[in-house]
Amino acid sequence: MLNQRTSEFFTRLASDPDAQRCQVSKIAGATLLDAGIKTPGSLRAGISLARLCMADLAEISITPCDPSVLVSNNAVFVRSDAPLRACLAAQYAGWPVQTDEYFAMGSGPMRAARGREQALIELQLTETAETVVGVLESDQLPGADVIGLIADQCGVATNRVQLAIAPSTSIAGSVQVVARAIETAMHQLHELEFEVRSIVSATGHAPLPPVAKPGDTVAGIGRTNDAVLYGSTVTLWVDCEDEQVAAVAANVPSNTSADYGQPFATTFKQYDYDFYKVDPMLFSPAVVTIHNLRSGRTWNHGQIATDVLRRSFLS
Amino acid sequence: MLNQRTSEFFTRLASDPDAQRCQVSKIAGATLLDAGIKTPGSLRAGISLARLCMADLAEISITPCDPSVLVSNNAVFVRSDAPLRACLAAQYAGWPVQTDEYFAMGSGPMRAARGREQALIELQLTETAETVVGVLESDQLPGADVIGLIADQCGVATNRVQLAIAPSTSIAGSVQVVARAIETAMHQLHELEFEVRSIVSATGHAPLPPVAKPGDTVAGIGRTNDAVLYGSTVTLWVDCEDEQVAAVAANVPSNTSADYGQPFATTFKQYDYDFYKVDPMLFSPAVVTIHNLRSGRTWNHGQIATDVLRRSFLS
Amino acid sequence: MLNQRTSEFFTRLASDPDAQRCQVSKIAGATLLDAGIKTPGSLRAGISLARLCMADLAEISITPCDPSVLVSNNAVFVRSDAPLRACLAAQYAGWPVQTDEYFAMGSGPMRAARGREQALIELQLTETAETVVGVLESDQLPGADVIGLIADQCGVATNRVQLAIAPSTSIAGSVQVVARAIETAMHQLHELEFEVRSIVSATGHAPLPPVAKPGDTVAGIGRTNDAVLYGSTVTLWVDCEDEQVAAVAANVPSNTSADYGQPFATTFKQYDYDFYKVDPMLFSPAVVTIHNLRSGRTWNHGQIATDVLRRSFLS
Repeated sequence: MLNQRTSEFFTRLASDPDAQRCQVSKIAGATLLDAGIKTPGSLRAGISLARLCMADLAEISITPCDPSVLVSNNAVFVRSDAPLRACLAAQYAGWPVQTDEYFAMGSGPMRAARGREQALIELQLTETAETVVGVLESDQLPGADVIGLIADQCGVATNRVQLAIAPSTSIAGSVQVVARAIETAMHQLHELEFEVRSIVSATGHAPLPPVAKPGDTVAGIGRTNDAVLYGSTVTLWVDCEDEQVAAVAANVPSNTSADYGQPFATTFKQYDYDFYKVDPMLFSPAVVTIHNLRSGRTWNHGQIATDVLRRSFLS
Repeated sequence: MLNQRTSEFFTRLASDPDAQRCQVSKIAGATLLDAGIKTPGSLRAGISLARLCMADLAEISITPCDPSVLVSNNAVFVRSDAPLRACLAAQYAGWPVQTDEYFAMGSGPMRAARGREQALIELQLTETAETVVGVLESDQLPGADVIGLIADQCGVATNRVQLAIAPSTSIAGSVQVVARAIETAMHQLHELEFEVRSIVSATGHAPLPPVAKPGDTVAGIGRTNDAVLYGSTVTLWVDCEDEQVAAVAANVPSNTSADYGQPFATTFKQYDYDFYKVDPMLFSPAVVTIHNLRSGRTWNHGQIATDVLRRSFLS
Repeated sequence: MLNQRTSEFFTRLASDPDAQRCQVSKIAGATLLDAGIKTPGSLRAGISLARLCMADLAEISITPCDPSVLVSNNAVFVRSDAPLRACLAAQYAGWPVQTDEYFAMGSGPMRAARGREQALIELQLTETAETVVGVLESDQLPGADVIGLIADQCGVATNRVQLAIAPSTSIAGSVQVVARAIETAMHQLHELEFEVRSIVSATGHAPLPPVAKPGDTVAGIGRTNDAVLYGSTVTLWVDCEDEQVAAVAANVPSNTSADYGQPFATTFKQYDYDFYKVDPMLFSPAVVTIHNLRSGRTWNHGQIATDVLRRSFLS
């Protein structure tokens, strides 16, 4: 279901790649949409990548924002009425696509077709699909072995795999990551054992950082993550008991993490570039507002950290 | 004409209600689109309801806004080049749809087909229609008697009635009310005997408040009205003599009302929940800017009342 | 290529001019779309004019903005992934369309078909076209002689000319000029001998000023230019050596001009309304941010001049 609707959108994109300054190629029967490796890509391609990540279940736009607060003239604004499926079944980069010679963070609805991640199983977000669609954050196009691995794990033939690829050090790749503010809130709430199925609608807003230098993946990951961790504002409309919100709301924003307070690239380096050593509580929006539809009450926690954004974006 | 164009949009919505988390049903031949009673609805459905209200003669979007001023992360932005027809012929909630057992504030182009309100007649905004479209602000779906009443007053068969329904205590219902900033300015100007046919184009912007608790209609009405009365900014482009603007501009914003200064729910309670006792001058945008195309002059009046928004939204 | 894609959009607009409060007429076989002379036009028509100017290679929207900074409630936001073609091949008003009895600033892709401007030749932005599309900033519709001149210079028959026309003293005309923030930065950079082909993507944001009085062309030009010169923010993503950016970045914003600091109408008057006497360095955005994709570095120069905007817009 998620893959099917996304595949329709992918097919439209791939039929006119020049319009978004992308390039289409075939490998092992699979269709690749390069949005930032052999091509500079575009802002519009970034929006498209984010839509693919979210199974086309969100409205995504680039908007002006206040540079004195967000250290950028532009922001990415995301709105979804299906945040559970859009963010947790699809957008969360929960699939490290890895072979001996290749590594990419994998996201998009292909994760639901693979169905191996614990959260997907817990939340009953898996599906079978005829064609699967994924987004790879990587500075290399995948080879036939990677396609084989993806097809195999998703239970489809290789010619039923559609992948869009861009590094975080490209325009489109940076838009795609910065569109993840809601997703980090959803994921954090699930980790905090909040019933995420009670989240009805959501919006998220984060500054678009300067794109990092090609090849400097640490800076690419650093700035795009900082945009979310120190610059994003997420609003969630939930339907549950107030106690359930009260129990977790203050713990959602990134400022509750022990690793909060410095650009992510610095933290990452301190942990020898090992993601698994970083406090998982850090991967959250800067500000979270939760409106409970059942009670009419609002919780608001966190803060924008302009100083950290400045150190990250203008270094 | 208004009903015809809106009916085309309604029919598209009703053909895929799941996409906006709405539910379609039939009663006495009429088509009902439930956007917030038996379904949680959605932000997107709220935009659709607002478009239906405005006869699809406006662009409506949800945008990020500054929470330190507007006490919300999100706002509703409306732009129309046909504000007279969109707001006064259609959007104004001038039809209290009432039977012994039912009450709803009725808006949308069906009002122009009914043609009984004085303002519609004065401004020659009535029309005959084959199919009529309306929006009901109510927490109950209408029964056959209500459909009969609407059909009768609009001069159509009951199977030519299309209604969208949501309470102000729902996501879609709250978006729909907050989209009324321009409409309140237009209505106020008409009350002040300004020639509203000289209003060429308009924009309006108001914060999206937290949705009130289901069943707490006073809070629902209160917060959504406060978003407009204390948080909205309206811009009008007019073409007339400067004296005509000068005579009324300062009297448009809500702060000229004796009832200005406290959350609307408090005022409403003071008047025993009787709308007709509230000073009608209160129902206005917080800030009004009028650009006169004929002279190039601008009038700007009113102010955002962040403190009242805070008391209303976070109570 | 530019004219062909724009012609498709023009033809759609001209098939339903009422939707945007425009009027279509024919003169000497050419199609004219009047967006502000015999008709009041509309905000939407302004967006359409800007799209025509930019060869439909940009996303253009009207957004709310902070009136305490920008002295307007509304701004025009432009985003393009093809700024060289959109702005320099098409949007730049580099063709003074002039006969004994007529004068208009000419822009749009017809300039690329004419191919006479030095910058177009230098940058290889000329093209041949079957049908040409242009936008005229003027308060008069062109006559047959003007059509003949345009057709002749573009190498097409007169019935292959499509023109949209609006004065800067109209709603649509003001939107159209204010959508030029990126264009002024691109043009300035070309004048500064920066390799503008290295500019990959761009956004621009400027306040929408009050429309000046009909016939007061100086005020019309003044306010719309002030919106850009004193109120706009442009972001450019470039791919080149840092030295190339460093050599020019500080010289891009309008505040480097000797003529900076007062409303444009005042400056214009001082130079006896002779554009060619105004310092060309003045025609630039207020703020320019340049992100170099090759290095990850950012340059930020200029400032918003709220006081000048106030003197210009509210005079």
